[in-house]
Amino acid sequence: MKKSAFSALDEILGKRLETSFETRASYSFDATRKNFLPDAVAFPVDTLEVQRIVELANQMRFPVVPRGAGTGFSGGSLPVHGGLVLSTELMDRILAIDTENLYVVAQPGVVTGALKEEVRKMGLFYPPDPASLKFSTIGGNIAECAGGMCAVKYGVTRDYVLALEAVLGTGEIVRTGVATMKGVAGYDLTRMLVGSEGTLGVITRATLKLVPLPESVITLLAMFTENRKAAGAVNAIVAARVIPAAMELMDRTAIDCVQATIPIDLPEGTRSVLLVEVDGSAASAPPEADRVEEACRACGALEVRRAYDAPGRDDLWKLRRSISPALLRVGAVKMNEDIVVPRSRLADMLDFLSELGARKKVTVVNFGHAGDGNIHANIMISGKDQDEYRRAEEAVAEVFKAAVDMGGTITGEHGIGIVKSPFLEMEIGPMGISVMKRLKSCFDPNGILNPGKIFPEEVAGSS
Amino acid sequence: MKKSAFSALDEILGKRLETSFETRASYSFDATRKNFLPDAVAFPVDTLEVQRIVELANQMRFPVVPRGAGTGFSGGSLPVHGGLVLSTELMDRILAIDTENLYVVAQPGVVTGALKEEVRKMGLFYPPDPASLKFSTIGGNIAECAGGMCAVKYGVTRDYVLALEAVLGTGEIVRTGVATMKGVAGYDLTRMLVGSEGTLGVITRATLKLVPLPESVITLLAMFTENRKAAGAVNAIVAARVIPAAMELMDRTAIDCVQATIPIDLPEGTRSVLLVEVDGSAASAPPEADRVEEACRACGALEVRRAYDAPGRDDLWKLRRSISPALLRVGAVKMNEDIVVPRSRLADMLDFLSELGARKKVTVVNFGHAGDGNIHANIMISGKDQDEYRRAEEAVAEVFKAAVDMGGTITGEHGIGIVKSPFLEMEIGPMGISVMKRLKSCFDPNGILNPGKIFPEEVAGSS
Repeated sequence: MKKSAFSALDEILGKRLETSFETRASYSFDATRKNFLPDAVAFPVDTLEVQRIVELANQMRFPVVPRGAGTGFSGGSLPVHGGLVLSTELMDRILAIDTENLYVVAQPGVVTGALKEEVRKMGLFYPPDPASLKFSTIGGNIAECAGGMCAVKYGVTRDYVLALEAVLGTGEIVRTGVATMKGVAGYDLTRMLVGSEGTLGVITRATLKLVPLPESVITLLAMFTENRKAAGAVNAIVAARVIPAAMELMDRTAIDCVQATIPIDLPEGTRSVLLVEVDGSAASAPPEADRVEEACRACGALEVRRAYDAPGRDDLWKLRRSISPALLRVGAVKMNEDIVVPRSRLADMLDFLSELGARKKVTVVNFGHAGDGNIHANIMISGKDQDEYRRAEEAVAEVFKAAVDMGGTITGEHGIGIVKSPFLEMEIGPMGISVMKRLKSCFDPNGILNPGKIFPEEVAGSS
Repeated sequence: MKKSAFSALDEILGKRLETSFETRASYSFDATRKNFLPDAVAFPVDTLEVQRIVELANQMRFPVVPRGAGTGFSGGSLPVHGGLVLSTELMDRILAIDTENLYVVAQPGVVTGALKEEVRKMGLFYPPDPASLKFSTIGGNIAECAGGMCAVKYGVTRDYVLALEAVLGTGEIVRTGVATMKGVAGYDLTRMLVGSEGTLGVITRATLKLVPLPESVITLLAMFTENRKAAGAVNAIVAARVIPAAMELMDRTAIDCVQATIPIDLPEGTRSVLLVEVDGSAASAPPEADRVEEACRACGALEVRRAYDAPGRDDLWKLRRSISPALLRVGAVKMNEDIVVPRSRLADMLDFLSELGARKKVTVVNFGHAGDGNIHANIMISGKDQDEYRRAEEAVAEVFKAAVDMGGTITGEHGIGIVKSPFLEMEIGPMGISVMKRLKSCFDPNGILNPGKIFPEEVAGSS
């Protein structure tokens, strides 16, 4: 960035432009642990400031990298070509909760968990629940189309975005969509922006759909001797026409990993567990739970535990919630993938991952959102061994290829960013990339917004 | 179209190119009753034929107008600039129904009602239910993002499209999305195509999400002395945290209209009715129906009838189902609008429509999907009186303005087409139009696909 750019930004932002090394360093990384130092960090407070920043960036040609909380796993908020990080932290207000029409209007910097909590107080439910929800923001969730556990029943972020305000890469302010369930006036710019990873526009306001908070939630934990039986239970539950609010699978590697840190009492021979949550009315949830239990037992469950109240449910969730912290015991570096396969191919994919880990001599810890076929395959390495690193990278490429070959995707909820851009063409083909590049040029002709993301390119930065 | 274009098309299609006046006339109109004669009609059988047609159209610069069943209310399938109508009629196969992963793959010409019926046999449910479903096609429904009665609970077509294959205006074949609930590999081209009214691409294959068929459906008919009470009940039902599968309102004009043709026994003083359908498990539906009834009674319902079985439900639906045929008694020409307002503004909009009808001296018959705020305001005229026509057109413009002013939209499910293009800017502003035009040029640089739609322009054709 040129000196004149700093002084022009200073005129727009004053003290809300930070150029100290400490601040820049604090905004140089995300959950990928990769590191790229920005030239400055901006903290705009409103849409017009965002617009002035993007206009300036177009005049002076510096990158603008929108950033929520930096919790992403694909590098979406990393300033890989330097430039300005645009943090939405100060745009953190909930502007309206409409309890009659069931929507909430929020600025992009609102923390997702805080929004969920606010609407819950009114008996309403904002379903998307990425694991990062205590920190991650609505803006970041929309930019990456965040998912979570309850997508199997409730869908993902995309399914809750009714309308947006955004500053496009051109500096234009657009208002898309409408705060009603129906609306077809022109092209769907709303969903064009959802999942666009900050490369088309900076989201400055979002109108999000809410649903009534379910009256009743029942949690079940089923233990199996092998993945194939647990995966069979997932399909048996759906065949029994129950769509649970969550359906999480942990394989032997994940169970062992947790057991090594926080021993949890499980029946002898447990090699795979399924955590299922059903919700609904007080009348409908118990019979659904019965059907889930029946399906699990029919598929050979060793035991099925059930909890109706919050403390009991927390207890059943402990196993699942403890994985991420426990993972660090297995390896210092985690290659955290989020492939998806059709639900019926779950067991095939888990078998493949196990065979792959053995063949490549790397630890692969698998858990995830079995209900929607979204598996978090974590390849754990020490990070100190060049050969191990190479084998792990080969394994990642094989995982992606297998997911696509099974009719799935290389990313269910983390996005492409820089981590998966070398593999995007494998999934969408050269034609898909060509069309998307044209779209990019139409919203951001000068390539100002979040350069280096989604589309494959050589990235120079350190890692 | 040039003579050479006909012979080149003949080489691609042979007998499946029709140029007789009779066939061209049969494909010259849609539900708007407007009329534009195409130069020829093509009946391709596969994606490659569609691609060859679009490539040829780019070389020889003739319009290609994709057409499903021509049931649209906004003129989406009308060849307003002549050229070739591309009928998807022969691409009418269901290619796969995946009962494990809950999706169906269909060609664009599959009739929506037939698809719903096929999956229903397997205990599965494809929710979108436009009133035209016995005739309209999946391709047309996707192109217009069709809605229907059950959108309040289940969403619209957009919410069920997982993946698409389409031939873009450039002639490129793209495959978008993935047949899983989650998938964020690059921009959301799938939803870019949904609702694009055949102006960006010709849909050649669709993968649609299915849900389990609800076990139990209960229908309720509640009668009120005025719209404001019925609209109050709509909001009271939602406040009781019930989201019904359908929530249809008919105002006095609509009731009178049906009563004049098929007398239906209603309590003295009925001036507004609400038809509500709840669905779910056998355990959850009855208590929901109780809550609906309570809410209706609390809002002053004169009577609430309830039906559990198919014949009883059909009986309650008779009133609602008879409106469209009955409308023709009121006026020969129907200006059928599909505005949406936030649910809480329903009563205000109905009051406005009533005042407007009186002021403009035209009959306005109102009914519609009250649950999602989508009102079908039908302005009925004889069509023989120039002054009446002018007053009706003024009324339409006022209806649109009021919808937008109340925070709604000029179209919930019919699309813009040619009928609403003069009003699009009122809703999305000049910036919205400019951005959408850029998108159009990126998918269809030569303006081959469905020219004259969505964007305002002077249309020459007869009406």
